Amino acid sequence: MCFKELEESFKDHCGIFGIYCPDKKLEVAKVTYFGLYALQHRGQESSGIAVNDTGTILYHKDNGLVNEVFNEVVLNHLKGHSAIGHVRYSTTGKNDRENAQPLVVKYRKGHMALVHNGNLVNAHIIREKLEQEGAIFQTTIDSEVIANLISRNRIKSDNIEEAILKTMDEIKGAYSLLILTPNKLIAVRDPYGLRPLVMGKINNSICFASETCALDTVGAEYIRDVEPGEIVTVTKDGIKSTKYRQSFKHLCVFEFIYFARADSYLDGISVYEIRKKLGKQLCKESYVECDIVIGVPDSGTTAAIGFSEEAKIPFSEGFVKNRYIGRTFIKPEQSQREISVRLKLNPLKNNVAGKRVVLIDDSIVRGTTSRKIIKMLRDAGAREVHLRISSPPVLFPCYYGIDTPDRKELIAANYTTQEIAKILGADSLEYLSLEGLNSVFENKLQNFCTACFSGEYITEIPEGFNKYIFEEGV
Amino acid sequence: MCFKELEESFKDHCGIFGIYCPDKKLEVAKVTYFGLYALQHRGQESSGIAVNDTGTILYHKDNGLVNEVFNEVVLNHLKGHSAIGHVRYSTTGKNDRENAQPLVVKYRKGHMALVHNGNLVNAHIIREKLEQEGAIFQTTIDSEVIANLISRNRIKSDNIEEAILKTMDEIKGAYSLLILTPNKLIAVRDPYGLRPLVMGKINNSICFASETCALDTVGAEYIRDVEPGEIVTVTKDGIKSTKYRQSFKHLCVFEFIYFARADSYLDGISVYEIRKKLGKQLCKESYVECDIVIGVPDSGTTAAIGFSEEAKIPFSEGFVKNRYIGRTFIKPEQSQREISVRLKLNPLKNNVAGKRVVLIDDSIVRGTTSRKIIKMLRDAGAREVHLRISSPPVLFPCYYGIDTPDRKELIAANYTTQEIAKILGADSLEYLSLEGLNSVFENKLQNFCTACFSGEYITEIPEGFNKYIFEEGV
Amino acid sequence: MCFKELEESFKDHCGIFGIYCPDKKLEVAKVTYFGLYALQHRGQESSGIAVNDTGTILYHKDNGLVNEVFNEVVLNHLKGHSAIGHVRYSTTGKNDRENAQPLVVKYRKGHMALVHNGNLVNAHIIREKLEQEGAIFQTTIDSEVIANLISRNRIKSDNIEEAILKTMDEIKGAYSLLILTPNKLIAVRDPYGLRPLVMGKINNSICFASETCALDTVGAEYIRDVEPGEIVTVTKDGIKSTKYRQSFKHLCVFEFIYFARADSYLDGISVYEIRKKLGKQLCKESYVECDIVIGVPDSGTTAAIGFSEEAKIPFSEGFVKNRYIGRTFIKPEQSQREISVRLKLNPLKNNVAGKRVVLIDDSIVRGTTSRKIIKMLRDAGAREVHLRISSPPVLFPCYYGIDTPDRKELIAANYTTQEIAKILGADSLEYLSLEGLNSVFENKLQNFCTACFSGEYITEIPEGFNKYIFEEGV
Amino acid sequence: MCFKELEESFKDHCGIFGIYCPDKKLEVAKVTYFGLYALQHRGQESSGIAVNDTGTILYHKDNGLVNEVFNEVVLNHLKGHSAIGHVRYSTTGKNDRENAQPLVVKYRKGHMALVHNGNLVNAHIIREKLEQEGAIFQTTIDSEVIANLISRNRIKSDNIEEAILKTMDEIKGAYSLLILTPNKLIAVRDPYGLRPLVMGKINNSICFASETCALDTVGAEYIRDVEPGEIVTVTKDGIKSTKYRQSFKHLCVFEFIYFARADSYLDGISVYEIRKKLGKQLCKESYVECDIVIGVPDSGTTAAIGFSEEAKIPFSEGFVKNRYIGRTFIKPEQSQREISVRLKLNPLKNNVAGKRVVLIDDSIVRGTTSRKIIKMLRDAGAREVHLRISSPPVLFPCYYGIDTPDRKELIAANYTTQEIAKILGADSLEYLSLEGLNSVFENKLQNFCTACFSGEYITEIPEGFNKYIFEEGV
Repeated sequence: MCFKELEESFKDHCGIFGIYCPDKKLEVAKVTYFGLYALQHRGQESSGIAVNDTGTILYHKDNGLVNEVFNEVVLNHLKGHSAIGHVRYSTTGKNDRENAQPLVVKYRKGHMALVHNGNLVNAHIIREKLEQEGAIFQTTIDSEVIANLISRNRIKSDNIEEAILKTMDEIKGAYSLLILTPNKLIAVRDPYGLRPLVMGKINNSICFASETCALDTVGAEYIRDVEPGEIVTVTKDGIKSTKYRQSFKHLCVFEFIYFARADSYLDGISVYEIRKKLGKQLCKESYVECDIVIGVPDSGTTAAIGFSEEAKIPFSEGFVKNRYIGRTFIKPEQSQREISVRLKLNPLKNNVAGKRVVLIDDSIVRGTTSRKIIKMLRDAGAREVHLRISSPPVLFPCYYGIDTPDRKELIAANYTTQEIAKILGADSLEYLSLEGLNSVFENKLQNFCTACFSGEYITEIPEGFNKYIFEEGV
Repeated sequence: MCFKELEESFKDHCGIFGIYCPDKKLEVAKVTYFGLYALQHRGQESSGIAVNDTGTILYHKDNGLVNEVFNEVVLNHLKGHSAIGHVRYSTTGKNDRENAQPLVVKYRKGHMALVHNGNLVNAHIIREKLEQEGAIFQTTIDSEVIANLISRNRIKSDNIEEAILKTMDEIKGAYSLLILTPNKLIAVRDPYGLRPLVMGKINNSICFASETCALDTVGAEYIRDVEPGEIVTVTKDGIKSTKYRQSFKHLCVFEFIYFARADSYLDGISVYEIRKKLGKQLCKESYVECDIVIGVPDSGTTAAIGFSEEAKIPFSEGFVKNRYIGRTFIKPEQSQREISVRLKLNPLKNNVAGKRVVLIDDSIVRGTTSRKIIKMLRDAGAREVHLRISSPPVLFPCYYGIDTPDRKELIAANYTTQEIAKILGADSLEYLSLEGLNSVFENKLQNFCTACFSGEYITEIPEGFNKYIFEEGV
Repeated sequence: MCFKELEESFKDHCGIFGIYCPDKKLEVAKVTYFGLYALQHRGQESSGIAVNDTGTILYHKDNGLVNEVFNEVVLNHLKGHSAIGHVRYSTTGKNDRENAQPLVVKYRKGHMALVHNGNLVNAHIIREKLEQEGAIFQTTIDSEVIANLISRNRIKSDNIEEAILKTMDEIKGAYSLLILTPNKLIAVRDPYGLRPLVMGKINNSICFASETCALDTVGAEYIRDVEPGEIVTVTKDGIKSTKYRQSFKHLCVFEFIYFARADSYLDGISVYEIRKKLGKQLCKESYVECDIVIGVPDSGTTAAIGFSEEAKIPFSEGFVKNRYIGRTFIKPEQSQREISVRLKLNPLKNNVAGKRVVLIDDSIVRGTTSRKIIKMLRDAGAREVHLRISSPPVLFPCYYGIDTPDRKELIAANYTTQEIAKILGADSLEYLSLEGLNSVFENKLQNFCTACFSGEYITEIPEGFNKYIFEEGV
Repeated sequence: MCFKELEESFKDHCGIFGIYCPDKKLEVAKVTYFGLYALQHRGQESSGIAVNDTGTILYHKDNGLVNEVFNEVVLNHLKGHSAIGHVRYSTTGKNDRENAQPLVVKYRKGHMALVHNGNLVNAHIIREKLEQEGAIFQTTIDSEVIANLISRNRIKSDNIEEAILKTMDEIKGAYSLLILTPNKLIAVRDPYGLRPLVMGKINNSICFASETCALDTVGAEYIRDVEPGEIVTVTKDGIKSTKYRQSFKHLCVFEFIYFARADSYLDGISVYEIRKKLGKQLCKESYVECDIVIGVPDSGTTAAIGFSEEAKIPFSEGFVKNRYIGRTFIKPEQSQREISVRLKLNPLKNNVAGKRVVLIDDSIVRGTTSRKIIKMLRDAGAREVHLRISSPPVLFPCYYGIDTPDRKELIAANYTTQEIAKILGADSLEYLSLEGLNSVFENKLQNFCTACFSGEYITEIPEGFNKYIFEEGV
C-alpha cells in the first residue's frame, strides 16, 4: 500500500481503558467506547470491549477503528458494572482477528478478561516452557502468556493480587494491564513504568486509561498515575493498592516526543509543554538563519512553534494535510507514482517559494518520508531547507512495545548526520542532543527509558528475541 | 424468531471434511469448500477451513453458511497440501464466533488444527481438572479440551498417534475428529463409532467426510468408513491405520432416520433405502385405510413413499415448501401470527380437501410443528389425518452431539401415544416399534446407538452433565 | 458461474405484491415483505418496497433476496397505509441496481410508485418517440416508459384511471401493474391477462399479488383475480373497477407448467392439479414400460406423481437436491468440473441402479441440464432412461416477460425429437402434444397464451424487438 | 447525532472532477478517484464516478466517502477514455442514495452523465413547468432538471454546445458542471462564475476540478480556470471554448474564507494567502492586548497565524483535535453530555491557563460551537477570551449551493455584536469589516459574491425558493 511509505513513523502498539461503576449509573461499555475513541491514535487496527456483570463476561472485538467495530446495538448488549477496552496497532499485514483484545478466558476461579499495552521481552521463553509442560496457545499476543501465568500462579495464591505479583516475577518487559475478574477491575503497571497508565474518577466510578486525554474526553477527573510496579484493585468496597517488591521510574521518553496526544499529561508532565520546549531547546542548539519555520504535520507542529518562538522566525504552515485520508487500498498506477505522496500532503507553494525554510520533525526512522517532504518543498520553490529534529538520533530498536525496524534500517544507525542530510536532500540537518533532551526534562532523563537513543535497555533482552517471534511459525 | 418453532426437529452439531493432496494438484481449500457445501445440512451456523503448507497453518472461519463465509479471494489465500473444514449448528443464540471451528493451536510440536463432530460427556470433568492445574480456556467447545489433552500427552509419547490413543483413554462420548499437523492429516473415530466418518480418494489424494454425499460432490471415490476406534494417518508416504485397544459398533441410528442426507451411505448402508424401508415397515405395523399418503417435507417424504408403496395408497404432495426460506429476522406482528408457519409451508388445498390423509414424519420432538401441520391440513379440508412416525418414540435426551430438549420437553416422555394424538389433533397416531426398527436393520439394531428410544446409553453419563455446561458461567 | 448451466430453465421476470390498509392496523411494509417472500421464486435478483403515507412515498430497494435487502430497521422506517413491492429476475449479468423496482417518480400530481410484471413489446418504439420529444431515461425498465406515459396522459385526463386507460391504448404486451399514488393503490392487468394478478382481503385491507400463494402466506382471503383489461382502484372509500374497452383471456400457459408455485391458483385454476394432470395425460400419450418414475427435482416432481399414478409404475426419488444451494461464486477448477453438477443434485444410486427409469421434466430449453441429468442416471447404473416432457416442444421465444433464449438456442426449434433424444442420451423422448395440453385445460387452451409452442403471438411483435433492446447501447 | 452541533459551520454541496485521456494511457477512473479524494472536504455523504468508453457509460455511486464507496475491483471495471466524478454533502438526513451523482441518462443522442456543483434558484419553476408538460422526476437534484433541458434543447440544436447555451438561458443560479457524452467531456461554469472550476493537464490528458488541490494531487499541471459563462469541450481533436453571451466575475467569497482547501488557487488567487491576510487585516482593525493568539482548529488556524504576525503576539495551539473523529452514531447518555464536545476537541490546559487569549475563527453561523469552545477555554483557566472573526457578519442565507440556516437562525442577523459576545461568553467580539475584506481582495470585492454579508444577491431569487423545495413533498 502506497501510503505506508509516508507513514513510516514509529507506532505504539495499544491504548487501553477501563472503568468500574459500582452503582451501574453509567453505561460502562459506552464510556469505554468514548475512552477508546480518544486513544485511537495509539492503535487503529483492532478494537475490543469486554464487560462484566455478575461474573458473566461479555465481549466484542474485531479488526477496525472503534467506530467501525462498535454500533449502538452491540454496545447496548454489553451491560455490566465494569468494562475494559483496547485499541491495537498491528505490526503485521496478516488477517489476525484472533489477536484482537480483550483476551477472555475461563480459569478455575471463573472468567477473566485482559488488555495489555506494551511488550514482554521474555514471552517466548515462558511460552516455550509452558508448551513443554503441555500448554497450547491460540494467539500470538503476550496477554495469553500472562493469563496462563496468572491462572497457574492462582493455584498457590490466596488471592489474584498475589498471583499477579508472582507473575510479575516471571515476566520481563513493558506492560500496562487492565484485568476484569468476576468481582474486580485490576490495573497493573510494570515495575519500570515503561508504558503509561493513569487513574481517574467520574462521580463514584473509577477509571483507568493509557493517557489523560481519555479521562478528559469521558469527563473524568484525573486522580493520579498508576505507579510503576503498582497493582490497583477496584471492587465495590473501594480501591486497594498493592506494590511489587521493587520499582523504578522509566517511562518511555518517546511517549512525550511522539506517541501520546499533545493534550495528555503523563506522570504529571504535560506532553504539549515538553514538545514546545524540545523545539525551543532545538533552536538553542542549532539555530539557523531562515525566513520561516514549518513543522511536518501533524507531529512536528508543536516543536516548530517552540523553535519559532525561540528563534524569532515566523512560524508558518508549509503543507496542507488531507483530513479525510483514511484507509485506501487503491494504488496509483506506475505512471502516477507521485500521487501517493500528494494524497496526504500538498505544499503551500507561495508560502515557501523563494524562502529559506527550517523544517521541524520529531524523529527520523528510515528517512523515506523526510526525503519526499524535502523534495516537495524544493519543488514548491523553497530556496533552502534546514531539517531540525526535536529528539536525538534513533540508533537502537525498541523492545518494549514500539514498532521500530531492524537496526540496519534505522538510518541514523548507519550514516553520519552529514550523510543523512545529503541522502534526504537537506541543506543542513541537526538533531537535538541527549543533553538538550535531559535539560528539557529538567535533568531527570534518568527517570525515563531512552534505550532507542542510548542502547541502554532497562531490562536484559533475552537472546533470540524479536517481536514477531510467535508468528514466525504461523 | 418465528421459524424456530417450526424447525423444532433434532439438529446435529457438525459436519467435517478433510483432504491430503501430496502433489498439490488439487486446490485443497476449494475441494474442502465444496465438501462442506454438501454437508451444509449438518450445520448452518458457522463455517471454517484450515490449510497446512509446510507447517504453516492458515485458516478462516466465521458465523454463516459456507457460501457466506468464503469467497474466491479468501479461498485463494488458503494454499496448502492438506485442509480440514467444519460446518456447525450452534445450540445457543449467542454471538459465539469464538466457538467456530477449526480450532488452531500452537503446542510444543508446532501448529495443529482440529475439527470435531460429536459431543464428549466428560469434557466438563476434564476441563475442571485441567483448570485446577492452571489451564485456561478460550472457547466452550470440546475441541479445546481435546487439543489440551493431545498436547499434554504428546510430552510422554513417541508420536502424535500415541498421544491421541492416550487422549482416547481419557475422553468419553462421541467424536469424529480430523486433525492437521505440520506433516499429517489424521482422522479419528471414537471407539463406539457414534458419529459417522468416511474415507475417499480423488486420484492420489485422500479425503475424509462425515457422509459419502460429500465424496460424491467433490468427485471422490468411496474407499471405506473409518472404523470405530481407528486412527487413520495420512502423510506423503501414504496411509497408516492405528487401532484403539477396543471398539464397538454403535453408529447413531438417527443419522439414518433423519440427519444424514438421503443419498449418503453410512457404514455401507444406504440412508435412502433405510428410510423407504422404515415407511414400509411402518405401514405393516399400523396401516390405516386412507385416500392419500403425504410426508412432512422434506424429512418425511421418503418414508411416505415407502408407506405408500406398501399400503398401495397413492403418495401425494400435501404441502408446497418455500424453497427460498432463509434466515429471516423479521417477526410478523401479533395480529399476523399465522404468517410464521405459512412462510415455510402451504398446504395443497385441493389435494387434501375431503381426503383421508396418512401423514408421515420421521419423529416428534416437542410436537409443536406437528400440531400446526395437522391444523393446516384440517383447515385445507382434510377429512381425517392419521399421523404415522417412522421411528419409535423419543423418550430420552441425546448426549452424543444431537441437540435434544430436556426430558420434560420431549412430548413422548410425558404423554401416552393416545394423549399425544389428542394434543396434536390427529385422528390417530402410531410410532414405529423398536422391533420394527430392528427388522429394518436386519435385526442388527444392537450395532447402533438407540439411547434416545431406550435410555440405554453406550457410555456412562457423568453426573451433572448437560450440553451447555461450559457456557453457564459465561 | 457454474450452476447457471444447470439452472437453464425458463425464468419469469417478476413478482409483485401490494396492500392498502385504510385503518393502518397492519404494518403494510411487513405484510408486503412476507408477500414477496412467498413470491421469491418469481425473481431473486432484486427486491424493493415503497410505502405511502399522506402523499409521502418512502422506499428501499437493492440487489438481493428479500431477506437480504430488508431488515427490521428498514421495515420499521417504511410506515404508511399502503405499500407495493417487487422481486425481480434480472436477465443480464450487469450490476444494474438502478433497475430495481419500485420505480418512484414525481409528476405534476405528486408522487407515484410503480411495480411491473411482464414485458412490453413496443416499449422501444415509445421510448424512441419520447426521446425525440426530449425525454430522458434513467433506467432500462418498462416501468419508466409506463410512468412517463401516465404522467403525460394525466394532463388531459380527469383522473389517473383515465390516464391509465389512455396509456393502455399505447402500450402493447404483458403487464400486471401496481401503482401507488398519494391517495390510491391501483392494480392494472393488460387486456390479454398475460401475466397473473389476484386480489385478496385481510380484515378490511385489500391486497394484490402475482399468485395466491402470497395471499395464503400473509393470511389473506382470496377474493378474485383482477380481470384482463381491468383497473382496480383502492382508496379509503373502497374499491372501484374500471374496464378497458376490450379484453381477452390469454394467461401464459407456462405459469401453470413451470413458473407459478404449485400451491397457487391462477384465474381460479389449481396449478398443482394442472401439473398432475399433465403427468397423467403425458402417460396416456407416451406410456413406456419401466420400473420407476422419477421427476427432475423440483420442477418435474408433480407431473411425475401424475404419470406414476396413471402408469401404475411406482413413483420414486431419483436424486437428492442440496437444499442449501445458494449463490456461490466459487468455480471448481478445471480438474474438478463435475463438481458443478453434483453440488446441486446427486443421484440415489441404489434407487436407480439396474432400473428402467421414466424421467419426467416440465420442459427442455437448451437441453444442457437434461443431458447432464441423464448421464448422472446412467453413471448411477440406470438401465434405461426414457425422458418424458409434460409440455409441448418450445419452438418460439417469449416476448411477454419470460427469459427465453434466441430461437437458434432452443433445441426443439433446431432438431427433431429423435435427434434430441440422441443428443441428450435418452433411450426415448416424448413431449406432451398440444392436443393433450388442450385436454388438460378442458379444451379451453384458446384462453391461454401458447405462443412459445405455436408461434401465434397474442399481439403484433414490432420489428427489431428484443428484450435487451434498451441496454444495447449501455 | 451529537457532533452535528459542533460541526455547525457552513457546508458546500459538492466537489467535481473530470478527465479526458485520448490515448487511454491513464486509468481515468483511478485518476478521478484520487481527484475526488483531494476534494473530499467539499462533500462527505456520497461519491460517484462515471466513465465513457465508445458511447457506453458505466458508473458506480453510493453513500459514503470516496474510499468507502470504491475499491480496486469496482475501479477496474470502470474502463474508458474519459471520466467524471462527484462528492456530495447532503443537506438532509434522509437515505437518499438516489440523489448521488453522476446522474446518467439516455436521451435521443445516446447516453449522457452529469455532475453538478452549485444550486439553481429557479429549478423548482422549471420542474413545475416540465411536470405540467408531463415530465417525471426520479431525484431531487438540479442535475435532473439540467439534463431534461439539455435533452429538450438538443432537438432544435445543431450540437450539444448549442443546447447547453439554450439551457443556460433558462437556468438561474450557481453551477459548475461536467458532462460526459459519447464523444465529449464538457465543462460548464455559470455566467457569474459563482462556483469554482479549474482546468489542468497531465501529458496529453485534460482534466477539470473544483479546486487546484485536486490537480496537484493527481500530478496535473494547472492550465487556467474555466471562465464564467464558458463551455469547454474536450474531444479527441482537442479543446474548444464556447462563450455564453454575457458573463460576470462573482466567485463565492466564502470559498476563500472557509470552503476551499488552503493549498488551492481559485481564479489564480491563493486561498492560503487570503486567509493569512484576513487575519492580518482583522488584527489591524481590532487589535487587543493579549498573551496568545489561537485559532479554532482547523478553520481558524491560518487567520490566527496572520493575526499573530501582525499583532506580534505569539501564535499558539489552544486545542488538540482528535484526528480519528469519524462518523460515529453512538450518543453519550444524558449524564455524559459533555463527552460530545470533548470527543472532537480538548483544550491544552497549561497553554491557556491564566492567559489572555485571542481566539480566531472564520465565521459564526448559529454560535453554538463558539459558545462551547469559549466555555472550554474558560474551564481550562483562560483569563480573558477575545473572539475575532476573519469575515464580516453573515446576515443573509446563501441560495447558491451553501448550506446555511434560515435567517432567523443566523445569530448575526438577530443580535448586535455586543449581544453576541455576551451570548457566546466572550470578553469581546469583533468581525472583519466589509471594507477590510475588500482591501484584502485588493479593492476588487465587487468581483465576488458577498450576498451572505450584504444581501445583494447576484441573481433574482424567485419567490418561494428554498433549497429543500423538491423534497418537501417526498
